[in-house]
Amino acid sequence: MKAAIYGGPRDITVGQRPDPVLKVPTDAIVRVTLSCVCGSDLWYYRGLSAHDLGAIGHEFIGVVDEVGDDVRDLRPGDLVLTPFTYSDGTCVLCRAGWTSNCLHGGGYGNNGMDGGQGEAVRVPFADATLVKVPGTGHSDETLRSVLALSDVACTGHHAAVSGGVGPGMTVAVVGDGAVGLSAVLAAKRLGAARIIVLSRNPARQAVAREFGATDVVAARGDEAIQTVREMTDGLGVEAAMECVGTGDSMATAFAIARSGSVVGAVGAPHGVEVPIDTVIFRNVGLRGGVAPARKYIPELLADVLAGHIHPGRVFDFEVDLEHIVEGYQAMDERRAIKSLVRVS
Amino acid sequence: MKAAIYGGPRDITVGQRPDPVLKVPTDAIVRVTLSCVCGSDLWYYRGLSAHDLGAIGHEFIGVVDEVGDDVRDLRPGDLVLTPFTYSDGTCVLCRAGWTSNCLHGGGYGNNGMDGGQGEAVRVPFADATLVKVPGTGHSDETLRSVLALSDVACTGHHAAVSGGVGPGMTVAVVGDGAVGLSAVLAAKRLGAARIIVLSRNPARQAVAREFGATDVVAARGDEAIQTVREMTDGLGVEAAMECVGTGDSMATAFAIARSGSVVGAVGAPHGVEVPIDTVIFRNVGLRGGVAPARKYIPELLADVLAGHIHPGRVFDFEVDLEHIVEGYQAMDERRAIKSLVRVS
Repeated sequence: MKAAIYGGPRDITVGQRPDPVLKVPTDAIVRVTLSCVCGSDLWYYRGLSAHDLGAIGHEFIGVVDEVGDDVRDLRPGDLVLTPFTYSDGTCVLCRAGWTSNCLHGGGYGNNGMDGGQGEAVRVPFADATLVKVPGTGHSDETLRSVLALSDVACTGHHAAVSGGVGPGMTVAVVGDGAVGLSAVLAAKRLGAARIIVLSRNPARQAVAREFGATDVVAARGDEAIQTVREMTDGLGVEAAMECVGTGDSMATAFAIARSGSVVGAVGAPHGVEVPIDTVIFRNVGLRGGVAPARKYIPELLADVLAGHIHPGRVFDFEVDLEHIVEGYQAMDERRAIKSLVRVS
Repeated sequence: MKAAIYGGPRDITVGQRPDPVLKVPTDAIVRVTLSCVCGSDLWYYRGLSAHDLGAIGHEFIGVVDEVGDDVRDLRPGDLVLTPFTYSDGTCVLCRAGWTSNCLHGGGYGNNGMDGGQGEAVRVPFADATLVKVPGTGHSDETLRSVLALSDVACTGHHAAVSGGVGPGMTVAVVGDGAVGLSAVLAAKRLGAARIIVLSRNPARQAVAREFGATDVVAARGDEAIQTVREMTDGLGVEAAMECVGTGDSMATAFAIARSGSVVGAVGAPHGVEVPIDTVIFRNVGLRGGVAPARKYIPELLADVLAGHIHPGRVFDFEVDLEHIVEGYQAMDERRAIKSLVRVS
């Protein structure tokens, strides 16, 4: 099959990889229709995080091609969505809702697993991992939003849930990437009354406004902190969402968080130091991490199919699989928020 | 009046300080009956944290001596308990329950405030800060437990609440000081089924058992981590309580915390680095800080007066005010868990 191949920093090519085959009876093979490039893929592309050579990509939707003998709930031809991590659904951590920390789970496109940026993927624990998308004849816009649930929309939702966002609250999002924008959408969906987003990019500001941001702060660093504090009577926000993963963004999130609130953090950490004095002396908590997307997908998918939310609007660049490197390049150069990859 | 005086590292003397007087109509003057030495006072005693020269101490109970014109709920002669921070009870943070982060609040025994280790204290926002102890003729044991609510019992309770301790849970406490032991008591009170305490000190182990610890782990560092993991099927505990404040204790707490759980941390931080990779990749949260004791006192006081809990049993050393330095020394040399100071 055709698939994107990671050859090292700034080396993404499209080539041939072995067709996936069922290995155990709980597997399914999914033929990928839509995939995309994640902000975390950019860390690999830039050589800032280690990645196996070979398959890459962890977000996709597609059609079931084949199922193992023990797969009960899926049939060939089913349209399915995968969370970016697979999980058995039965271990103590899955049962507690932490599917992204499944004792027997893992991710795609690394450690010998097929990548989502390819024509087909072997999915472990297919019944537990995959979510069937009900209905037929979905519009392209709907399918793009379904794809967004594979990772970015759930990750933004996890930032909001982790930060304790709720009705009527004043909150802020640090980061205007696809995850940050998704956190804005999640905060709006969860009822936040005032949503401040830190962004200097007009295209991203526009999506943020469309997703529910009420205030845009274009400043950064100390100036942004001072601005947000002034906007909140000196108190800071009731939930700060950290959607970048750098030391500066975490410092900003803690500085604008109200005493007693929680920073919801989902950025993959690179050089992050948690300001422990703020944790202890201002009772500002820290929650978040790799989103348990499998837990969140059902409720978010229902809202997508009902047309209540449009998380797919983070995709503002589109390529076919053959030209996927252009999708990486557009994100690397910040010309694109997030690149959709049309596979079949 | 007579009061303990901080003269610098390892310099605690008893001398004369000005009698406190009402400054604003919401003040009260409290004549101290029982006080005690806090683990955080030891940081000052050892020269590891900065402290103003002069008054010291922030835990006490006593009798109201005088009230300002605007004090409505207290009368001279009332037996009262103070949380270790005063608070106005009306600001947005107090109303949200974060009395220890009151916008107009502060602590005793520093920054020009009278210390609890003295004969009398001016208490700001007396109606909001002080809690009247109902009834008369309380036993000395009861009064010792009431005193414990001024800080240590509420701080241990905050560790447990912050860690999300609940019925049936398997939890662990890192730290066998008075706060750690109080966290054991709090976890038991909140319904934890299995309470693992890390302790190598027989006297402290005994109090931990009395407070509800089901398992004692005498190992430290990597060996302790391995032991707790083995005791929990490799999963770690459902809530880890960090009650020391050092880098090692925080690292241990995160290492023994189950994925998806929260570390409840209340130790004053000295050289703490939060393992952000554990936060993000195992979804282990961090909550805690300076305990909102004023919020917790009513429910805990009711349990003390009903004889359900005996937090005062952390006091295993007793001095009068004149000999308070011996109380510091006994704690500094780890001969005492916590020193009670009989003032009048």
